[in-house]
Amino acid sequence: MPADANRVIADLRELAALTGDANGAQRVAFTPGWQRARDWFATRLATLPAAWKLERHRDAAGNFWVTLPGASPRSLVLGSHLDSVPNGGWLDGALGVLTALEVFTAIARDHSARPPFTLRLVDWADEEGARFGRSLFGSSAFAGRHSIAADRARTDRDGVALEAALAHCGIDIDRIGEAELERKDIAAYLELHIEQGPVLERLGLPLGVVQGTKGVERHAITFHGQEAHSGSTPMADRRDALAAAARLALEVRSIALRHRDAVCTMGSLKTFPGIVTAVVGRCECTLDQRDLDPAILAALYCEAQEASRRFAEEERCTVEWSRIWSIEPIPFHPELIVLCREAIEETLATGEPSHSLPSGPLHDAAEVARAGIPTAMLFVQSLGGISHNKIEDTREDHLCQAVAAFDRLAAKTLRWMESQ
Amino acid sequence: MPADANRVIADLRELAALTGDANGAQRVAFTPGWQRARDWFATRLATLPAAWKLERHRDAAGNFWVTLPGASPRSLVLGSHLDSVPNGGWLDGALGVLTALEVFTAIARDHSARPPFTLRLVDWADEEGARFGRSLFGSSAFAGRHSIAADRARTDRDGVALEAALAHCGIDIDRIGEAELERKDIAAYLELHIEQGPVLERLGLPLGVVQGTKGVERHAITFHGQEAHSGSTPMADRRDALAAAARLALEVRSIALRHRDAVCTMGSLKTFPGIVTAVVGRCECTLDQRDLDPAILAALYCEAQEASRRFAEEERCTVEWSRIWSIEPIPFHPELIVLCREAIEETLATGEPSHSLPSGPLHDAAEVARAGIPTAMLFVQSLGGISHNKIEDTREDHLCQAVAAFDRLAAKTLRWMESQ
Repeated sequence: MPADANRVIADLRELAALTGDANGAQRVAFTPGWQRARDWFATRLATLPAAWKLERHRDAAGNFWVTLPGASPRSLVLGSHLDSVPNGGWLDGALGVLTALEVFTAIARDHSARPPFTLRLVDWADEEGARFGRSLFGSSAFAGRHSIAADRARTDRDGVALEAALAHCGIDIDRIGEAELERKDIAAYLELHIEQGPVLERLGLPLGVVQGTKGVERHAITFHGQEAHSGSTPMADRRDALAAAARLALEVRSIALRHRDAVCTMGSLKTFPGIVTAVVGRCECTLDQRDLDPAILAALYCEAQEASRRFAEEERCTVEWSRIWSIEPIPFHPELIVLCREAIEETLATGEPSHSLPSGPLHDAAEVARAGIPTAMLFVQSLGGISHNKIEDTREDHLCQAVAAFDRLAAKTLRWMESQ
Repeated sequence: MPADANRVIADLRELAALTGDANGAQRVAFTPGWQRARDWFATRLATLPAAWKLERHRDAAGNFWVTLPGASPRSLVLGSHLDSVPNGGWLDGALGVLTALEVFTAIARDHSARPPFTLRLVDWADEEGARFGRSLFGSSAFAGRHSIAADRARTDRDGVALEAALAHCGIDIDRIGEAELERKDIAAYLELHIEQGPVLERLGLPLGVVQGTKGVERHAITFHGQEAHSGSTPMADRRDALAAAARLALEVRSIALRHRDAVCTMGSLKTFPGIVTAVVGRCECTLDQRDLDPAILAALYCEAQEASRRFAEEERCTVEWSRIWSIEPIPFHPELIVLCREAIEETLATGEPSHSLPSGPLHDAAEVARAGIPTAMLFVQSLGGISHNKIEDTREDHLCQAVAAFDRLAAKTLRWMESQ
């Protein structure tokens, strides 16, 4: 019996009603709203047949696991995250977890609770990093990428330390590395997620195969010029830090366009002293550059650096770069990508080939893939490309197609595991 | 006996020591530091011969006046302001007041305390507007330009209302219009000020004649685009409000350069949401445009408006303009400008013609001129063009030349008054 998309949609609505308000989803990790979502998920699991004897536990990093032992200990993991950003949407993360639950349930039923491989469900802890600025917390601990020292010092905007917030949730920061133990025997990981971008909608497609997650170069750039009086300083005598930054803001767009699918974003620009009567003496901006191809990512970064130095020199300013964060591109598993293509094409049955696209946003699936586990992701269209907002939405017929394709993908992956 | 520049410099140093700290001058109007400066000025006045019977009073707007009655009630006024910005320089304003005091004293001595015309000295209240954002407070009240209703509502950053701060200094906001009474019988107003810009230094000149103060068009401009995820939104799908603003930041420089001496400044730019992972959905910036020629000022404003609309359209954004403040160009008195030229040329005695320049910053002299009083201003070079900063400075020999030229200008103006 195939997975029931209506059940997934009903679950999503129930969760939204329980953990959202007029401003959207309020399930920020390590807050009461998140705990409420997880408690609801536990009661939802309790509706499954007791005879299945599901094993449930929270790992050392707060990831929540549900396991149905199969004939083989080698396991297929399905999952995503229940946590949201503040004022978030009803689908980001939750769609993946609740579809995983439905597909998990359907497979269990089909195999009379004794599938050929072990089935696991995971709800990753704090994918969004909304409270402490550390995205992919649980999945990176699982992947062995945690850096406890750096994380411990992080505080939320009220000054509460991550360590204290974790302890409040029963997580000991000194032990989160033990989450790596969960990697044992995992043969594949699958995740369904909304696209959170406009590509599929523009192409008129409900579903897409995710090639991998783009690598990211994220930098803070500061131009230093000379603060000067706006009335008394002739144009030719100025060393305007904003002018240099404005030129870079425009140039990074040209750089991105030279490299096909690449994206470059100046998301923040701050002027100092930032008053109407003074030429800008210092300008701080941020640059976020992404591409799936490591060589292109490196080129984006080099070209932006070179341009910033040229503009600084021409404007008689200086420029400093400081890396905020970076991550390499993470391609998903080529064979699972093929299965993903087939699952979409069979579900849509239009005779058209499926569309592949890289993911700009990061996902827990990227951490799983970095840990060497064969991983694939399936995207469903986002209306207006909008996410992290209460108006985030996806057409109901597209949600149904997504659940059906993910169900097919899981079945294909179980068959693929037999050949491994 | 000519005015003694060394006395002026000694006074300036004494005032700086009394009212400054490691960060510069701390004489913000309507604060204890300002009151300390004024108290010191009063004790300084007390060192003048009692036989002169100087009349001293504070007018209804807080301007401080010293009067030596002459043979005629028609008066020559010399002055500037003792208030400073926070962390200001030692010369801005104070140089004008203390030079005025020295020249006043020298003229009084030369005429045995009975000059042909009445002599007056003025220390304007709150030229800088540093605490309440209302520049030229006292001189605009004097000129009849006060707008009590608007001023009353202003608060400082601690939420203290201007009305309360004034009351604390003994000024009744409902009566500041009475400062207009001081205009009676004034025949001319002269002011010495540091340039606060780099023009004279670049020309290698100690002194300059001020043609007038530039008119100002000051606007807040907001571009509205669409906030979007930096990773998932292809470049072609973006409506980037920062891109539109960056193009305007660069274009206003081209507009200024097309109009000779004009200046255009984008001093503040703010991005919203202003985070590294989001395309800028809203960008707020400020534009300050200045020129001495009203037609050019109007052209600057129109061209910037037109460019902003073009950029908004091309970036699929919208744009809104809101006037912050504007003032027309205020030329100084043509005959007094001639006297100012002569005073500089005779003082420097280089055989070179003096240099005339507009003032970009506003000055109390502009308000006096707007009130229809013949007005002239003399600029002395600023090192590095820097002001409103503790490193604001002027060469001592230039200060001496400035005091001597201002002394000559006052003498010439008294002779000119005889012909009026």
